[in-house]
Parts: sequence; C-alpha cells; structure tokens
Amino acid sequence: MKIALITENSQAAKNTIIHEALTSVVEPMGHQVFNYGMYTAEDKSSLTYVMNGLLAGILLNSKAVDFVVTGCGTGMGSMLACNAMPGVFCGLVIDPTDAFLFGQINDGNCISTPFAKGFGWAAELTLKDIYQKMFEGERGLGYPKERAEIMRTNRGVLKDLKQATCHDMLTVLKSVDQDLLRKAIAGEKFAEHFYAHAQDAEIAAYLKALSTEGAAEAQPQSVLA
Amino acid sequence: MKIALITENSQAAKNTIIHEALTSVVEPMGHQVFNYGMYTAEDKSSLTYVMNGLLAGILLNSKAVDFVVTGCGTGMGSMLACNAMPGVFCGLVIDPTDAFLFGQINDGNCISTPFAKGFGWAAELTLKDIYQKMFEGERGLGYPKERAEIMRTNRGVLKDLKQATCHDMLTVLKSVDQDLLRKAIAGEKFAEHFYAHAQDAEIAAYLKALSTEGAAEAQPQSVLA
Amino acid sequence: MKIALITENSQAAKNTIIHEALTSVVEPMGHQVFNYGMYTAEDKSSLTYVMNGLLAGILLNSKAVDFVVTGCGTGMGSMLACNAMPGVFCGLVIDPTDAFLFGQINDGNCISTPFAKGFGWAAELTLKDIYQKMFEGERGLGYPKERAEIMRTNRGVLKDLKQATCHDMLTVLKSVDQDLLRKAIAGEKFAEHFYAHAQDAEIAAYLKALSTEGAAEAQPQSVLA
Amino acid sequence: MKIALITENSQAAKNTIIHEALTSVVEPMGHQVFNYGMYTAEDKSSLTYVMNGLLAGILLNSKAVDFVVTGCGTGMGSMLACNAMPGVFCGLVIDPTDAFLFGQINDGNCISTPFAKGFGWAAELTLKDIYQKMFEGERGLGYPKERAEIMRTNRGVLKDLKQATCHDMLTVLKSVDQDLLRKAIAGEKFAEHFYAHAQDAEIAAYLKALSTEGAAEAQPQSVLA
Repeated sequence: MKIALITENSQAAKNTIIHEALTSVVEPMGHQVFNYGMYTAEDKSSLTYVMNGLLAGILLNSKAVDFVVTGCGTGMGSMLACNAMPGVFCGLVIDPTDAFLFGQINDGNCISTPFAKGFGWAAELTLKDIYQKMFEGERGLGYPKERAEIMRTNRGVLKDLKQATCHDMLTVLKSVDQDLLRKAIAGEKFAEHFYAHAQDAEIAAYLKALSTEGAAEAQPQSVLA
Repeated sequence: MKIALITENSQAAKNTIIHEALTSVVEPMGHQVFNYGMYTAEDKSSLTYVMNGLLAGILLNSKAVDFVVTGCGTGMGSMLACNAMPGVFCGLVIDPTDAFLFGQINDGNCISTPFAKGFGWAAELTLKDIYQKMFEGERGLGYPKERAEIMRTNRGVLKDLKQATCHDMLTVLKSVDQDLLRKAIAGEKFAEHFYAHAQDAEIAAYLKALSTEGAAEAQPQSVLA
Repeated sequence: MKIALITENSQAAKNTIIHEALTSVVEPMGHQVFNYGMYTAEDKSSLTYVMNGLLAGILLNSKAVDFVVTGCGTGMGSMLACNAMPGVFCGLVIDPTDAFLFGQINDGNCISTPFAKGFGWAAELTLKDIYQKMFEGERGLGYPKERAEIMRTNRGVLKDLKQATCHDMLTVLKSVDQDLLRKAIAGEKFAEHFYAHAQDAEIAAYLKALSTEGAAEAQPQSVLA
Repeated sequence: MKIALITENSQAAKNTIIHEALTSVVEPMGHQVFNYGMYTAEDKSSLTYVMNGLLAGILLNSKAVDFVVTGCGTGMGSMLACNAMPGVFCGLVIDPTDAFLFGQINDGNCISTPFAKGFGWAAELTLKDIYQKMFEGERGLGYPKERAEIMRTNRGVLKDLKQATCHDMLTVLKSVDQDLLRKAIAGEKFAEHFYAHAQDAEIAAYLKALSTEGAAEAQPQSVLA
C-alpha cells in the first residue's frame, strides 16, 4: 500500500520523528511511505491544516496513494479539512485501539493524530503502536466479526451519502481558491512523489498546468517579455 | 443556544444518561436541549450513524439548532457522517480538554463522542465535564489567545474550502437516497422539535412534503383510492 | 514466569474476560497464569481490594508467583493496597505505553488496572495490548536505553527505602487482622495454586495453620468435643 | 488545607508551570501551597523520585501539610515511592475524573501525575481541571453516594493494613539511608516551609539535628578543630 505522510506548519519540526515511527512500522509490512512534508519548521513552502486536507483529497482521489497519515496540534483541524474533501474518510486516532477499530469498522483511508496535545515524552511509542494496529493485516473485517456485514453496509451508505453531498475532485480543484491550491502542492517533493504515481490524468494535468502557470507568474517580467 | 442531542441505534439505551448529563450542565447556562432520539433501543424508528450525520446537516443548515451533540460506539462513524454534510464541522471529543480546545480553536458546530469505547463506569462524570468545557463561556477565542487571529483566519479558509467541496443542503436533500432521508427524520419528536424552530423555509417545506408523501405511501391503498 | 490474576468483588463478573485476555497473550510467550479469583460475583468467598493487596503480598513474598495482575473499579484501591505490602511494587497501568514504560523503567512485580472506569466496549483489546507490552521481552532495560543505568540505580534505592519502611512479610502476616488474612486466602483455588508453588516455608506454614485453625473453629462444637 | 508541591529532577523545569496551575486553582478555594521544589533543572540540591516519596512521608506524617501534589516523568516512580511510606496514600491521577473518584472513593492524601508522558501542548489545562476536581468540595463522600459507607469501611481497613505493614515515620527516618534523607530535605526552602508548620516535635527535631550535623560535616576541618 502507498501511504502519504502530511504534516502542517505548527508541528513541522516533528515530521522526522513521525516519519521514522511510521516507516519503522509499515515498511517491514511491505508498505511504501511518501513524505509530503512539511519537513522542518523552516521549509520554504508552508502547509496549514486546511491545505493538509486539500492535499489529502488530491492524493487519494488521484490514487497517488492509498492512505494518508496526517495530523496537527490537536488532530482536529486536519481531520475536519480532510473530511471536507470528496472520497476522504478521515478518523481521529489517539490510541492503538482507536486505530484498530477505525480500520475494522470504518475502514477509512486517512487518519489524523494529535501531534501536540497529549504528545509528550515517549509519544513515539504510542505512535508506533497506532501505526501497527492501523496497517497490519486486513481492514474492514468488522469488530466483533459477527457485525461485519452490518458495518460493511453502513460504510456503503456513508460513501453514497458523501458522494451525494460533495462535488467530484476535479470540480473541487477548479472551484477552490487557486492560491490555496497552489500552496497545497508547493512542497519540495510534491512533484516528484505525485506525478509518478497519480492515476487520474485530469487531476494531474490540472495541477501541472496550475504549477507551470504559477511558476511563469513567478518569473521576472523581463524573461517573459 | 439551541442544542440537539442525536443518538443512534447501537447506543440508544444510553440516550437518557447522555441527555441527563447534557441538560444538567447546559440548562443552567441558559441553553435549550432538543432530544432527537433515539430514546431507547426499542424505538420504532431507528437511526444509524449515517442518518445521524444527515439529521445533523438538516438541523444545522436549517438553523433549527445552533449545535449538535452526537456520537456512536466509537464516535467515529457519527463524526464521519456529520463531516460529510455541508456546513457541519464536527469534532471528535473524548475528554474535557478536547472540548475546550475544539471550542476555542476550531469553533465547530457539532461534537461526536464515543458512547461505548472507553465508556465505562462513571463515564457520565467525564461527559458532564466535556459539556461544561464545550458550552460555558464564549467560543472561538483561540488558545493561546495570542494565536486567536491566525486561528480565526484558518477557520475562515476551511469554511470556504468546504463551501467549494459541498453542494448546498437543499441540493443534498434532493439528491440523497430519499428512503435514507425519510428514516433520518422519522423520529418520534422530529416534527415537534424541527418545524417549530427551522429557519429555512425551503428545507422545511421539502422535508414536510417528503414526510407527507411517505405517510401517504404508507397508507393502505383502499384509503387512497 | 508465573503470573497470578486477582480480581475483587466489584469487578468479579469480569474475571473471565480478563483471564482470557491475559492467557491468550502470555501463555504463547511461555508464561503460566494462576487465577486466584474471584471467579464470579457469586463466589462464596469474597475479596475486597484491600485483600487483593494482602494476597499479592503473600504470593510475591513467598515466590508462589513472580508477578501479580490485579485491579478494581478504578484500579486505585488495589494499587494502594498492593503498594502497602513489603516487596510489592505495583504500577497503575491504563494503556499499553504505560505497561511498556513501567516494565522498562520501574520493573515492578505487580500491575493494577481499572476494570470499570474507562472500561467500555472493546476494552479487551486494550487489555491484551497492555499484557503484550508488559510481558513480552526483557524488562528493566530502561527507556530510553541511555538512561538504563540511572533508572536501575533509582530502582535499587527505592527497594532499599521500602525495606526500611516495611516489616518483613511474616511479621506482617502475624500482625494484620487475622480475620482479614483468613478471608484473603479463602478463595476456592488458593490452596491448590499456592501451596504447590510457595517457596517460603514459614509463610506457607503460617497460612496453613491459620486455615486449619479457621476450619477447626468453623466446625460444630460437638465434633470438637 | 496546606498543600505541598514536590517535583523531581527530570521534570524540574516544569515546576513553575505546575505551581502556577496549582495555585491558580486552589488558592481561590482558600488552600495554601508550599512549593518544595525542585524549582529549576539547575537547582543546587536535586531530588530523585525516591526522595519525593521520602519527603512526602515527612511532610504528611509531621502534618507540615495535609496533602502532597507530586509526580515525575510517568508519575509511576513518585507514586511508588510515596506509597512506600507509612501513612501516605498516593493516587496516580491522569485526568479530572481520576481526581474526583480518588477524592471521593479513596480519599488519599497525595497524588502523583505524569509530567512528561502524555504531557504535551495545553497540558496545563488538564492539570488545572485535575486540581479543580481534587480540591474543590468535600472528599470521602463516596461515588456513587449510596456506596459511601462501604467505601469508608474499606478505607479504614486499608489504613489498618498499612499500619500493620509499615514502621512509624520516626523509625523510618532513623533506619533509612541517612544520606538519602539528608538530600531529601536539602531543598532551598525546606527549612522555611517545614519547621514553621510541622506538628510532630520528634520528627522535626530529628531532621534538624541531621541537617545541623550535615552542615557541621560540610565545614572545613580547621573550623571544627
């Protein structure tokens, strides 16, 4: 499975510790991790939690990744932003049992975790346990298993509901604040990670055009003349 | 402030304990609570967590209430369903500090709480503390207050993003599975609580028509003939 | 390692679920579990949390077991009672990271866990994770390992301090309320589990005498005459 | 009520934030706080968690204070050390409901809290809520109140048990490592806070003699000659 890690500006300094916790657990399971940053608090391009959501929406709807791991200070902002996007089902996961139950019952494609609130000494241990329970074995089996069928049914109904409430992703990309969108994909490694794996040609083309246009606008006038 | 309580089928038996915890805390603050059920595990009309979300969307977008208190076994399903709706910003709140921070930083209009996972003996004490921190004083002041302005800005950006991703509520009502919608508003006291307070005439009219039509359909044929 | 499970009257009905969680995790590791009860809420002989402590003191000081797993509603009463005994170092363990850190830093010989507060649906999952982190691998290695030496030193100082504050266990047995002591060892399987494994002849002899005497006292007078 | 705050070396840098949280909550209730340090990570005299326990034992048994608030990285070490002392009943308190239940059910005289594990951003909010629930109103009333009587009985039995297991405090002071004891009372403000309020003349005299002797020993030989 392809897993994206996205961290925002307030907790950017923790990107390395989170990335290490995640890769140390999921790479041995055969999953791939794509670190979309922010990488440090000093990164040139900055992500807010709202951009986290937009970026998660892009990655999941284009199938550039299968799962997004994100968070912010309390985890709440990123979770709200992710869940505002079509096709994104983001759990707020605080302990390993949350991760297991979210995987078995809700079978979403995104988790947001608090990286500041409750995130004290030895928090990397709990993170690792969360990732273990989230990414080992098969998901969507229900808990307890006797209720698997009804849980599957409800997930389908939720998916349909969300499809009725949200525009499709390409429409979203065209209608959101284009400056916000440009910033959401301005990360140092976005292009490298994204265009190699995105499976939706229209989304990729739209974003590439936006970036080029942005880059063009950023050129000194003399060059364009 | 008008506050709706919505509980779903798996935790319906706890409606009374939750309602008591909520009213004991918020009524002395001057808030009004509208209990939309389910009231017991044996209610004739049953709500799933997906319907909780649809109902929350109706109540908030029609301004029948200002805030929705909901939940399910882990809180996750109801949270996902609520956040799938336009104009709903639903936090997953587990402890009193979550409630305070969600109120000050995210200033959402809905909370979902686990009513089974971690909900053991004396859980009503923690519930009361959550409601205390959620509903006392002014919200949206930021924490720490020095960051209030940037937090307010991000909330605005999130709101705009969600407006770009979601259809408006009336469109949602028309395009969702009409049977799901009918069940979401079939609660024993829905009509009593909702039509008296809804401030959006179109939403109210649409739902009233749907109910009437539903009632008509439910009539024995001979009566309609 | 020999591990005793002790549950008290208020949570006796959960003995089976706790026992299953414990054995399912630790038996595959090669540990042995001795279930000292209470087994059901209707057991003839009843344990209070205070007796849990006394019983833990007996089992650990006699080396009948190497580790005690206990608890009560909040875990607090059993923890206090266990820590009142010589040679018992009982952690209050609520989540898996607690278990790991207690094992690595404090390296105690007893844990108490809340079996009512916070013990909701799916609590058996968290229990299993706690037992996993508590009983897998070697303990006392420190966390982080760079601080292992100072942690070991402090454990030694604590052990010496406790030796200075407490009477030895045999003295304790002789000076506590003999009726309380009799009840603490009145469980259905105490004799079977204890006398086969206790390695302290004096403690065993004292308790055997007390039980016999208790049994004698319980005989109808005519028999003794 | 007189409340002592004791922090150890690993979390000494947080003394100020803890002290502020504590005083901001309990002083308006009419309680007095005595900050026994450590005050900063650079204090000349250093406390380990084991010394925290010894110091708590001294303060409570001499009635210099009525209650001790302490902790360490996980809260576990300080809790174990405190509970190793005669007459000290120390709860491990992590959330406000723990505090309330410990106060009503166990009615102890000491709490230990994790100041590193789980102690992330905004942790001061949870600390304040803990102190609020711990120190407002009357303690020992039971929860639920219908069980007050049985809870009171069990507390009495525990107290008696502990009296049977522990030496009295003066004996403890004489038999513990005198160097450890000297360090436990070497804090900058110990003398000022303690001798003014201790109500046990023998304990006070013993410690004063030890300090004087310690001070004498620390003199250059020429002065003593």
